[in-house]
Amino acid sequence: MTWIAYLGPRGTFAEAALREMREAEGASLTPYPTVSAALDAVRGGDVTYALVPIENSVEGSVTSTLDELASGEPLMIVGEQAIPVRFTLVARPGTTLADVRRLATHPHASAQCRDWLRKNLPAAIVIPAGSTAGAAAALLEEPPAYEAAIAPRVAAEVYGLDILADDIGDNDEAWTRFVLVSLPGAVPPPTGADKTTLTLYMREDHPGALLEILTELAVRGVNLTRIESRPTRKALGDYYFSVDCEGHVADARVGEAIAGLHRVCSTVRFLGSYARHDGKAPLLRSGVTDADFADAQAWLTSLRGRE
Amino acid sequence: MTWIAYLGPRGTFAEAALREMREAEGASLTPYPTVSAALDAVRGGDVTYALVPIENSVEGSVTSTLDELASGEPLMIVGEQAIPVRFTLVARPGTTLADVRRLATHPHASAQCRDWLRKNLPAAIVIPAGSTAGAAAALLEEPPAYEAAIAPRVAAEVYGLDILADDIGDNDEAWTRFVLVSLPGAVPPPTGADKTTLTLYMREDHPGALLEILTELAVRGVNLTRIESRPTRKALGDYYFSVDCEGHVADARVGEAIAGLHRVCSTVRFLGSYARHDGKAPLLRSGVTDADFADAQAWLTSLRGRE
Amino acid sequence: MTWIAYLGPRGTFAEAALREMREAEGASLTPYPTVSAALDAVRGGDVTYALVPIENSVEGSVTSTLDELASGEPLMIVGEQAIPVRFTLVARPGTTLADVRRLATHPHASAQCRDWLRKNLPAAIVIPAGSTAGAAAALLEEPPAYEAAIAPRVAAEVYGLDILADDIGDNDEAWTRFVLVSLPGAVPPPTGADKTTLTLYMREDHPGALLEILTELAVRGVNLTRIESRPTRKALGDYYFSVDCEGHVADARVGEAIAGLHRVCSTVRFLGSYARHDGKAPLLRSGVTDADFADAQAWLTSLRGRE
Amino acid sequence: MTWIAYLGPRGTFAEAALREMREAEGASLTPYPTVSAALDAVRGGDVTYALVPIENSVEGSVTSTLDELASGEPLMIVGEQAIPVRFTLVARPGTTLADVRRLATHPHASAQCRDWLRKNLPAAIVIPAGSTAGAAAALLEEPPAYEAAIAPRVAAEVYGLDILADDIGDNDEAWTRFVLVSLPGAVPPPTGADKTTLTLYMREDHPGALLEILTELAVRGVNLTRIESRPTRKALGDYYFSVDCEGHVADARVGEAIAGLHRVCSTVRFLGSYARHDGKAPLLRSGVTDADFADAQAWLTSLRGRE
Repeated sequence: MTWIAYLGPRGTFAEAALREMREAEGASLTPYPTVSAALDAVRGGDVTYALVPIENSVEGSVTSTLDELASGEPLMIVGEQAIPVRFTLVARPGTTLADVRRLATHPHASAQCRDWLRKNLPAAIVIPAGSTAGAAAALLEEPPAYEAAIAPRVAAEVYGLDILADDIGDNDEAWTRFVLVSLPGAVPPPTGADKTTLTLYMREDHPGALLEILTELAVRGVNLTRIESRPTRKALGDYYFSVDCEGHVADARVGEAIAGLHRVCSTVRFLGSYARHDGKAPLLRSGVTDADFADAQAWLTSLRGRE
Repeated sequence: MTWIAYLGPRGTFAEAALREMREAEGASLTPYPTVSAALDAVRGGDVTYALVPIENSVEGSVTSTLDELASGEPLMIVGEQAIPVRFTLVARPGTTLADVRRLATHPHASAQCRDWLRKNLPAAIVIPAGSTAGAAAALLEEPPAYEAAIAPRVAAEVYGLDILADDIGDNDEAWTRFVLVSLPGAVPPPTGADKTTLTLYMREDHPGALLEILTELAVRGVNLTRIESRPTRKALGDYYFSVDCEGHVADARVGEAIAGLHRVCSTVRFLGSYARHDGKAPLLRSGVTDADFADAQAWLTSLRGRE
Repeated sequence: MTWIAYLGPRGTFAEAALREMREAEGASLTPYPTVSAALDAVRGGDVTYALVPIENSVEGSVTSTLDELASGEPLMIVGEQAIPVRFTLVARPGTTLADVRRLATHPHASAQCRDWLRKNLPAAIVIPAGSTAGAAAALLEEPPAYEAAIAPRVAAEVYGLDILADDIGDNDEAWTRFVLVSLPGAVPPPTGADKTTLTLYMREDHPGALLEILTELAVRGVNLTRIESRPTRKALGDYYFSVDCEGHVADARVGEAIAGLHRVCSTVRFLGSYARHDGKAPLLRSGVTDADFADAQAWLTSLRGRE
Repeated sequence: MTWIAYLGPRGTFAEAALREMREAEGASLTPYPTVSAALDAVRGGDVTYALVPIENSVEGSVTSTLDELASGEPLMIVGEQAIPVRFTLVARPGTTLADVRRLATHPHASAQCRDWLRKNLPAAIVIPAGSTAGAAAALLEEPPAYEAAIAPRVAAEVYGLDILADDIGDNDEAWTRFVLVSLPGAVPPPTGADKTTLTLYMREDHPGALLEILTELAVRGVNLTRIESRPTRKALGDYYFSVDCEGHVADARVGEAIAGLHRVCSTVRFLGSYARHDGKAPLLRSGVTDADFADAQAWLTSLRGRE
């Protein structure tokens, strides 16, 4: 039996995302109250994997997840899953829209359903909750503190609630991306459409330090897809970098690039190479395929063989 | 009378920071419930300035502030202020530490006082609140829902509360940085130790696009101090960049660099040049002072004068 | 009357090239024995222009011309002309191919006619001469030291010689490029297909110095078409760089790039912007046209205007 | 017995340079009339080595040597030697300075002795010769065509001539560098102060192509010491690059850099890694020693080992 932690409570988008992953089949899925708790469950060996949110197309990176992965006992990302953020208005069975005078949800969710609420429940009081799924779960308390909750669709199923209105978010394009995290071990095999995540600490903050990092990637044809200055917590303005780049550590170009980073940075933490959720393969310029690297290496070996 | 908005409620670190700024002298300081509301008060002309948090040495950027500045009606940063994050345990007058069974504060604050709480109030229940100052303010309600709050020192003064324990944070180096925002207008004069903030939208996401941006800065000797991929909200993985660089738009090297960015980016939003809170002047390599630029321009003009 | 010097003696490729130039119409064309003498005639005011060879598609740069332009009193290239190198076997009137037992020419010329000579005059002795035209001229001496000369076609006309065989070079693609040089003055107006020539002295020989130079050009979209390390004559291994780049000093991108070079180099000598002999306009990437620079400058001015 | 060709005739600077090399001890030294002939003697197996001039601190590169090495059957540079260019006025025994009315030498040599000649032999006629040593050798003809020759000191010894004046060059710092060339085979072992010579053909002439080349070197901390555009002989303005860089193919940074060049260029011809004549070791920035590369590779292998 595989045990998998996810950011709970039951009924979250994390649970919805996890249910779509191959790894979840036949596994025991356990909600944890925080990202930190879920990751510590992996570190402590209580679970094999944890699924935690890492990015939202509206809010950006989940910086607490970035920071948790960057520090503490090393972990490794082995997969990712992205799901559309679809909000649902849920209530106890028998409730109608007209009954709803108070509703609860996470502030991000109410912000993203502002238009629908203005149109359909203009008089309702919105009570902030720590999580959307938690707001749904609390409907089962006696007596409930409010009549409805904005929550993921999966929460209705999990808590036996009715759906009063589905897909009530203002932004159809909102997505959340989750990463599946394990202890460091076998890197998943390359698929041709992979991503590699790293944290980089500069040797010192000299002008052009960041340019050096990007050049190590660019010169080998490795495209950087995300970069963020994150505080080292030592001093204001002192940063490490959290980056995603296209490709897999097993790809020659990526391997040579991150070995290059290892030489110019004070510390590089490899956070994993894993299949992209969108299956998008990188556009490679000429000269950077594995075959190109192998040819160049064979040529170099032949030159050196003369020594 | 100058009106200045700040992220409230009264007694926040924002208020403490604002009180240390020259602009606050003799001004009317008004708390606003959210960053968005404070910035909109500037946009609407209700206030001349707003002081909002933009970065914390523990949590990193305040992304909602970055995003608010990047979109909507243009605003301009005209100053910054950084203050140490010192937490204080406050209570109604007459309360003792032994009375405290429940306390409220923002989750970030309780996280940063974990050691002190474990040692001094191991049995206390911590109730999450939307803001530290708000948690202090609510102590004045009748009856109060808890006995104490973790809040900035200034909150004790503002709400007439007692300080049960001062400086209870685990991390002595925690700082928050705030920016003073106005409508676009006169850029503050250069001081020799300035910072410039920009948001950059790429023309298209091609490999090396980010390297191009950094090269525009580096080739003119402009050091980048912070960079963040922020979601454009169009699609997952589609970003704009929020960057800080050393120097002032009036500096020749910075002016030429951001004109260069204007040419390679689809959109550049100039968010202001302003004195650094730490007064740290940049280390310039040879060839990039204003005098060097003036010499080079005079030479070029003499060549072209021959036309 | 315009006086123009050219690398003589009469009948050289330089004369042939000069005759095709607009500036030669109605001018007095005077042969000079060396490149140095022709350039000094310009420096001394004896002539308005000098036409001297600067590059050959077989031998490469005429380094003595590069060095003469790089040092001494400043001069300026105002035009270029390229002509195919067509060799002709010339002789005194009445001579037949069968009469030729000895022939004279410059060693470069005999090297380039090796195949024809092997096939048509396998037994002839080849006498090295200082110039092809000079070899032709000496046929008029009494008695002549040889029966024929390999020379430019124009030499037959100039010296009243017969052409025994035309176009006898092995390489149909051999070209020589000449530059028209004047005192520094009005730069010829841009044509849209221009070239700019510079000599660059580095501040010191540090690793990456050359990369800096190229980056100043590349970041503004200026393509380098030729670069050569030339000895400074101070020490073995101490070089200056002779470079050609696409575009005209009046082009915004070129102007900013060479002003940038002025800042990073110890010395930049501007040797002129002039129409390319082949009329090939540069392929510009987006963001580097004059209009793009003007837009960016207007934007920058508007930002600074707020000061 | 080792056979070594050198650029003759006997008494040249090449012979003087060769006599100082370890490889010449006990070897049979044979003069060849041209660089091309000397190199072909290596290609044909007639000799093991050829010593040919490649650079002069006054004239720059000996481009014919560069081009000969870049094309034809591959050869490899296995060593270099640099000697000061000291000119001597030589004559048949018994001749005095007052007897000299005509003297012969190579035009480069007379140009470099201009001051001495003006002062000491203002009336003498200077006859151009194909080589300085050849001019000295011809003094032995009966009757000699002139009374003296400007030649290397070694020519006096070789031809049994008197030295009328020694060290008559105007420039005390003139040096010529020679390379020792063999068939491709064992690369000489690294000494810590090595140089590597390459010829590079671009895939196509796109803007920034040269920048790419330099970046491949710079990103691995390899300093370029010489670069020249040389004609491919296909069309005017179509070049290959001849470059020297610091370090040895056996150095990790150089090996990775030239493998990178192999990927971005259409053709790279490795012309050898060999000890520098001046014993000057490169200044390496941090992160590019063999140990740094080995560390980075070990780290990468450990990551990949997890696969």
